[in-house]
Amino acid sequence: MSLVIKDAKIIGKEGNWDVLIDDGKIKSISEKEDGAKSLDASNKYLSPGFFNTHTHAAMSLFRGVADDREFWDAWPEVVWPLEEKLEAEDVYWGTKLACLEMIKTGTVAFNDMYFFMESAVDAVEEMGVKAVMSYGLIDEKDPDKLEDEIVATKNFVEYAKDCKNIKPALGPHAIYTVSRDGLEWCSEFAEKEDLLVNIHLGETEKETKDFKKDYSGTFSEYLAEVGLLNERTIAAHCVWLEDQDFSSLAENNVTVSHNPSSNMKLGVGKPMEYERMSEEGVEVTLGTDSTVSNNNLDMLEEAKTAALQQKMSGDATLMSAEECYKMLTKEGAKAMGFKSGVIEEGRPADLILLDKDVKATPEHDDISNLIYSMDGSSVTAVIIDGKVVMEERKVKGEKEIIKNATARSKQLVSGVI
Amino acid sequence: MSLVIKDAKIIGKEGNWDVLIDDGKIKSISEKEDGAKSLDASNKYLSPGFFNTHTHAAMSLFRGVADDREFWDAWPEVVWPLEEKLEAEDVYWGTKLACLEMIKTGTVAFNDMYFFMESAVDAVEEMGVKAVMSYGLIDEKDPDKLEDEIVATKNFVEYAKDCKNIKPALGPHAIYTVSRDGLEWCSEFAEKEDLLVNIHLGETEKETKDFKKDYSGTFSEYLAEVGLLNERTIAAHCVWLEDQDFSSLAENNVTVSHNPSSNMKLGVGKPMEYERMSEEGVEVTLGTDSTVSNNNLDMLEEAKTAALQQKMSGDATLMSAEECYKMLTKEGAKAMGFKSGVIEEGRPADLILLDKDVKATPEHDDISNLIYSMDGSSVTAVIIDGKVVMEERKVKGEKEIIKNATARSKQLVSGVI
Repeated sequence: MSLVIKDAKIIGKEGNWDVLIDDGKIKSISEKEDGAKSLDASNKYLSPGFFNTHTHAAMSLFRGVADDREFWDAWPEVVWPLEEKLEAEDVYWGTKLACLEMIKTGTVAFNDMYFFMESAVDAVEEMGVKAVMSYGLIDEKDPDKLEDEIVATKNFVEYAKDCKNIKPALGPHAIYTVSRDGLEWCSEFAEKEDLLVNIHLGETEKETKDFKKDYSGTFSEYLAEVGLLNERTIAAHCVWLEDQDFSSLAENNVTVSHNPSSNMKLGVGKPMEYERMSEEGVEVTLGTDSTVSNNNLDMLEEAKTAALQQKMSGDATLMSAEECYKMLTKEGAKAMGFKSGVIEEGRPADLILLDKDVKATPEHDDISNLIYSMDGSSVTAVIIDGKVVMEERKVKGEKEIIKNATARSKQLVSGVI
Repeated sequence: MSLVIKDAKIIGKEGNWDVLIDDGKIKSISEKEDGAKSLDASNKYLSPGFFNTHTHAAMSLFRGVADDREFWDAWPEVVWPLEEKLEAEDVYWGTKLACLEMIKTGTVAFNDMYFFMESAVDAVEEMGVKAVMSYGLIDEKDPDKLEDEIVATKNFVEYAKDCKNIKPALGPHAIYTVSRDGLEWCSEFAEKEDLLVNIHLGETEKETKDFKKDYSGTFSEYLAEVGLLNERTIAAHCVWLEDQDFSSLAENNVTVSHNPSSNMKLGVGKPMEYERMSEEGVEVTLGTDSTVSNNNLDMLEEAKTAALQQKMSGDATLMSAEECYKMLTKEGAKAMGFKSGVIEEGRPADLILLDKDVKATPEHDDISNLIYSMDGSSVTAVIIDGKVVMEERKVKGEKEIIKNATARSKQLVSGVI
């Protein structure tokens, strides 16, 4: 089926264009086209959709349960007890809720780590979003538990591997929650099956200090030893690193998922050292983390927050709107192994339209408007692999998702908060 | 004319309510009511509208012209030359554009300082928003210029004093741009006419360092000497203060307008010391500053940014969602001398409705949803003094405003950027 997006102002490109989509790919951006179905994009911006490189989607059921509290206060008392109560059906509706919010704010692909991931996969497939998805492997350094986690991981990868829009990945949660054996198994299995690997790294100062009690080297040395310092790894947070980690991450092509809102809201204590990462050549992308620590999945908001966080310390030139835009699109897609993120002929058609509303007036600089003024609510249409999953801000089944997610979340929090 | 808001979930209050508005005031929130006109608020939040305590509204014409650059690089090269070209008609359309954005994001009143303020007053009156408005007095320490600025200020106050929704105020721009004589005149005139006073204070480290070259005391000592350390003064920014300034501002009931996005985007170098201000009892409110340094006027976004800025340095408990909400509503209204900001019988009906959309799901905590997840685009209706100025996100004349503001701004930037 072909689709024409008519008269579109492509972000960062002069003039207005007709974009022809055929068989899920961008066939032409150069000519006036007529197709079976057309989307009017006059007075709209056309952009690649956004790529969120760190989420725990189903936690959208817990939005707002742990605000204004320290992680080590709120998580043991509220979040972990809630997660103990989780069932597969909760994860299904929580993931649907997250997908709905992502679609409504222009995200076309995300990188997830959580539990009951088979249910999460079902939700994502039904929503038509793309995702890298990983089961959060946590063995608490217990060999018996590792055995179980390996089985759960293998089952999940088997379940997800033939899904159209999903790339299964591995999810060793963090160095402090997974044994050396567990990390080594992940490395070997990832290489054998050709999978990406998600891990949390250097989120808090406590994590770094605790690590140094047991190990004399740096995070990157340890990751190298267990076989995870390579281009498969997407490391979330990376706030508390040591000097040599920066060059090691860069040289070994580890991707960083920077989560500024979550880091700030949980009080991690300092900005991520983006300037140093850029200088060393680390590939940095953007993630929202979960809605418990954010509390939304709006990537345009995340990008502005990222820029403000960098600039605050005294250099207004750090992390420009253009750099933010690249992280949201091209760099995010590349990190997750998707070929979209750029509007070029032959690329998969993972695209969004945004209303040129009051926040986009006047139009001195479209990338500036997008990053510093607009938010995800400006997104009017979302196209994934050429299929329109949102038009005029309407997503199929949204009322049912809100109803069911609300019901499941009410039941979960009952007696906990 | 009476109006009933039916079946509304009032933020922070259990249950759903009918709110009867009569003669511009909240008459009843306690009974089921039928009125001549009713607004259906089922599945919506009802809240006092927001109060933006620091703006340069007409600068909305310049949104995006000076991103990712230092103030002392971009302002002399871009912003000031643009302001040199400004005419009254530009300020009229720029202020209308800002009012439109404020209405669309739930702001019912703002505190403005700029030039050609008669035109700004006309724009605000036509839009139906409330405002404290001040002519930006800048004499560059030149006595002749001060004479002219006094005339301009007096003319503006005379022009605005009988406007329904507007409180004229004085606007000595800053200690570094106004002579001691100018500041003293403002103090005397403000007292004589019973006016609020807007001033920029301690925005950058350079400002503080330069000040110390000519004066041995602190900002607050100097303000006391010139007669501006009192309850009339709203001081914007207040990032770079000295120890004793905190207690002096508190004891003398100066209001601070905290502008986190602008401060961060311009790289002022550190967070405003909110914890210390709270401990000392300084009244803190929130402002967006202009769209050149923000780049929008969305107070919900500003509130989240404020909280994230505070927490980042290491204490996740600093500046809670509830404190943000109070600054947006009750504290902001109080600072500007408006009696709204609270939903109580007898208060002016300056109210907003917000859609409980996906960002407000689930509803574990409505204030958390509002501050940390939603943004201004969730606002569906705005009521000012009982009059509906936005319904179903439609504002009268918005297309004309966008068209004219776009045309004026294009003409202004031609040859400058």
